[in-house]
Amino acid sequence: MKSVNIGIIGLGVVGKGVYEAIRKNGDLISRKTGVSLAIKGVCDKDKKALAGISAGDVPVRTSSADDLIKDDDIDIIVELIGGIDPARGIIRDSLAAGKNVVTANKALLSEHWEELFRTASENRVFLNFEASVGGAIPVIRAIRESFVANRIDTMYGILNGTTNFILSMMAEKGASFEEALKIAQEKGIAEADPDLDISGKDSAHKLTLLSLLGFGARVSLEDVYTEGISAIEPQDIKNAERWGYSLKLLAIAKDRPGGLQLRVHPTLLPAAHILSDIEGTDNAVFIKGDLIGEGLLFGKGAGKEPTSSSVVGDIVDIARHLAYFCGENPCPYNMDFAQEDVKIRKVEDLEISYYLRFSVIDKPGVLAGISSVLAESEISIASVTQDERNEGETVPVIILTHLAGEGNMKKAIARIDSCDYVTAKTVAIRIEE
Amino acid sequence: MKSVNIGIIGLGVVGKGVYEAIRKNGDLISRKTGVSLAIKGVCDKDKKALAGISAGDVPVRTSSADDLIKDDDIDIIVELIGGIDPARGIIRDSLAAGKNVVTANKALLSEHWEELFRTASENRVFLNFEASVGGAIPVIRAIRESFVANRIDTMYGILNGTTNFILSMMAEKGASFEEALKIAQEKGIAEADPDLDISGKDSAHKLTLLSLLGFGARVSLEDVYTEGISAIEPQDIKNAERWGYSLKLLAIAKDRPGGLQLRVHPTLLPAAHILSDIEGTDNAVFIKGDLIGEGLLFGKGAGKEPTSSSVVGDIVDIARHLAYFCGENPCPYNMDFAQEDVKIRKVEDLEISYYLRFSVIDKPGVLAGISSVLAESEISIASVTQDERNEGETVPVIILTHLAGEGNMKKAIARIDSCDYVTAKTVAIRIEE
Repeated sequence: MKSVNIGIIGLGVVGKGVYEAIRKNGDLISRKTGVSLAIKGVCDKDKKALAGISAGDVPVRTSSADDLIKDDDIDIIVELIGGIDPARGIIRDSLAAGKNVVTANKALLSEHWEELFRTASENRVFLNFEASVGGAIPVIRAIRESFVANRIDTMYGILNGTTNFILSMMAEKGASFEEALKIAQEKGIAEADPDLDISGKDSAHKLTLLSLLGFGARVSLEDVYTEGISAIEPQDIKNAERWGYSLKLLAIAKDRPGGLQLRVHPTLLPAAHILSDIEGTDNAVFIKGDLIGEGLLFGKGAGKEPTSSSVVGDIVDIARHLAYFCGENPCPYNMDFAQEDVKIRKVEDLEISYYLRFSVIDKPGVLAGISSVLAESEISIASVTQDERNEGETVPVIILTHLAGEGNMKKAIARIDSCDYVTAKTVAIRIEE
Repeated sequence: MKSVNIGIIGLGVVGKGVYEAIRKNGDLISRKTGVSLAIKGVCDKDKKALAGISAGDVPVRTSSADDLIKDDDIDIIVELIGGIDPARGIIRDSLAAGKNVVTANKALLSEHWEELFRTASENRVFLNFEASVGGAIPVIRAIRESFVANRIDTMYGILNGTTNFILSMMAEKGASFEEALKIAQEKGIAEADPDLDISGKDSAHKLTLLSLLGFGARVSLEDVYTEGISAIEPQDIKNAERWGYSLKLLAIAKDRPGGLQLRVHPTLLPAAHILSDIEGTDNAVFIKGDLIGEGLLFGKGAGKEPTSSSVVGDIVDIARHLAYFCGENPCPYNMDFAQEDVKIRKVEDLEISYYLRFSVIDKPGVLAGISSVLAESEISIASVTQDERNEGETVPVIILTHLAGEGNMKKAIARIDSCDYVTAKTVAIRIEE
C-alpha cells in the first residue's frame, strides 16, 4: 500500500485534532482508500505541545518549520498556525519546495490568495483549504467541483459559529451581548480576543473565498461590506420575533445586474426560513445556481473534530492523487471503497415503535381483543385513539406503541388481521424520534 | 486549452439536459476550469431525438452505441439510458475500451456495482455516478471524499422525489394516494409505470450505493428491507399530525452493534425534525460521523437541470484529471477558478428594507420628527411600534421600512441621531425575505 508522509505545523486545537483523527481512524482511511497516512513530523513553538507526542509515534518533533519543509520524505505540509505571519512564509516556502499544502487559514487565503495559489500552480502542487470555510461542511468542494457546471448567482448563510452562538444565547435566555459573549468565552467557543468573530471579519474572510470560487471573481476582503453584532440588544431580537423574524449574522454574496453584492451584517430572516433554525455553533450555506436551483449544506461550523474532518479530507484528496496518478501505473480510485464483508442486521431483529391503524367493526370487546394480542406479543401500547363510534360499522382504531420487536409485531398483526372483526389489512408505520 | 471529447448515450430528459447544460454553460466551465468540453457524439434509438441536434453542433449522431464506444477521439462516455440492459453492456464495453464513464444509473450500479467498478479499475479509467443519488445534491462526493476521515455510522433521508411529492400532496390537500399519484403523473414527476418509485425500490437502490461508500460495506439490494407508500391513506397523515409527527418515506442506513440496518419504509418523524420540512420533489440526507457530528445536504432530488448539474460535475472531474494529470506537465488545478475582474456593487447602491430602533426622549412631536426625516430621505415606513410611554424618559421607537436606498438610509439615520431628542445611536438591521 502506498504511504504518504505528512508534516503538521501548529499543534493547537485543530493541529492536535488532525493528529488524533489520523491515529484514531488511520486504518479505516486506509481500508476506504488504499492509501496509508503517516505523520512524519510535527512542529510547534510550544515545547509542551511537542512533549505530548511520543517519538515512537512521530519521528520528527521540532520547533522549526524548516525542519519539516526541507524534509525530502514529507509529501504534504499541513499548516494550522492561523493568522498572517509566519503562516504566509511557511506556506510559500513549502509550495516552493514542491510540497503539497493543506490549510484551514481563511484570513491568510482571503488576503493573499493570489500569491499563494500562483506559487502552488507554478510548483505543480496542491493547496487545499476545505476547512477554512464552514468547518466540517464540504462547501468548497461542492462549489468548486460538484456545482462547477452552474452559473451560481447567490451564496448566503451563517459562516461563523461564535456569533451564531452569542445570538442564540441572547434569543433563548434574553442575555445581553456582553453576557452571551462571556458564556461563549467560558465554553471555549469565543477566543479571549473575540474581535475577528464579532466584528464580522471572520465571516467576510470566508465570503471572499466562496466568491472567488463560486463567481470566479477576483475579490478581496475590502470588497466585502462588513458589520458586526456588538450593537445588537436582546430587545432587538424580541422585537424581530414579534414581527415573525429571527436575527442572524448572515454572509451574503449575490451576482446581480449592476455588480456583485458582498456583505456581512446582522439580518432579520422570516422565522419560517430554514436558516432561522440554525442555532449555536452550527453553520449553514445556501447556494443557488441555474441548474441546481437551490441547495443547502449544513453542519458543524467549527471545533476540533469537525475542522479536523475537513483537513484530513483534504490530505486524503492529495494522498489519493499521489498514490493513483503519480506512480507508474496511474489508476483512478474506482474500487477503493470496497471493503470487507459485513453483517447485515435483519429488520426482524430490530426494536422499533409503531403507528398502527386497525380497521375493525365497532362492537364491544374489539379493543380488548387487539390489546390482548399485543400484550401476548410483548408489545406495549403508548396511546390509543378511536374517534368515531358507529356500532356495527367499520372504524379505524389508532395505536401508538413503545419499542417492540419487529418479528413480534409482524406476528401480532397477522393474528389480529385474521380476527373476524377486522375488515381490512392493518396499516403499520414505523416511528423515528 | 485542453479539450475533452464526450459521447452521450441516451437522449431522454437527462441526456438532453446534459447536452443543453454544456451548450449553455460550456464557456463558463472553461473559464472556471481551464478545460474545454466538446460533445463529439450523441446516440439514441429514437431518430426524432437525434434529429433535434444539428450536425454543426455534434459531428457524430448515431443509433448505435458502438459508434461512440469505438471512436478513438472520445474520452468520456456518458450513459443516460437507465435500466439494466442494454446499459450494463454499454458501460462494460466502454470501460473495457479504455473510456471513462459517467452515469446516473442507480438501478444498474446497485445491482452490478462489483462487476462494473472492477472493470473500471482494471482498465484504469473513471466510473463516476454522483447523479445516481440525490439529483443535484453532492452526496456521493461528500461521503467518499469530504467525510473520508470519518467513521460514518448513520445516513438517512428522503431519496425519492416522486414519493415525497405524493405524500406532500396527500398531506396538503388531503388527496388519496391514487389522486396524488395521478397529479404526479400529470406533472411528469411520476412515470407512467411508477412502481420503481412507490414500491421504495428506487430509494433502496440509492441506499445500497450510500452504504457501499459510507460504510465500505459490500451490500446489495437484497440487504435492504423495503416497503412502499401505496398503503398510506390521508387519515394516517392526519393522525400523525395530531400526535406531532410528519409522514415521510425514509431510507435509513445505520451501523450499529449487531450489524448494519438498511431499510426503506414510510416513517413518522417529529414535526420539528428538519426532514419534516422537506416538501415536494426535494431530497435531503443526514450523515453522522465521529468527526463531523451531524451534517445535512439538501437540494433538488430529480429533474432535468439538477441531474444534469451532477452529470456535468462528474464529466468535469474526469476532464480536469485528463487535462492536468495525464499530460507532460501534470499540474493540480489550483488557479483554475481565477477569472476576470468583476464589478463589485457598493452597498450604498443597494435597496434593502430595514428594522430601525431609535432611542428617544418620549415627548410630543418626536415620532413626527423622525417620520419627516425618513420621508425627506425617500424612506417609506412599513410599521411603527412604541410600546412604553414614560413622558420625558428614553423609550425605544421601532420602525420597519419598505425597500430603501442604503445611501439615503445612512444619511437619514445620521440626521436623526443628531437631533436633541435622540439619546443613543440608532440601531439599524437589514431584513432579507
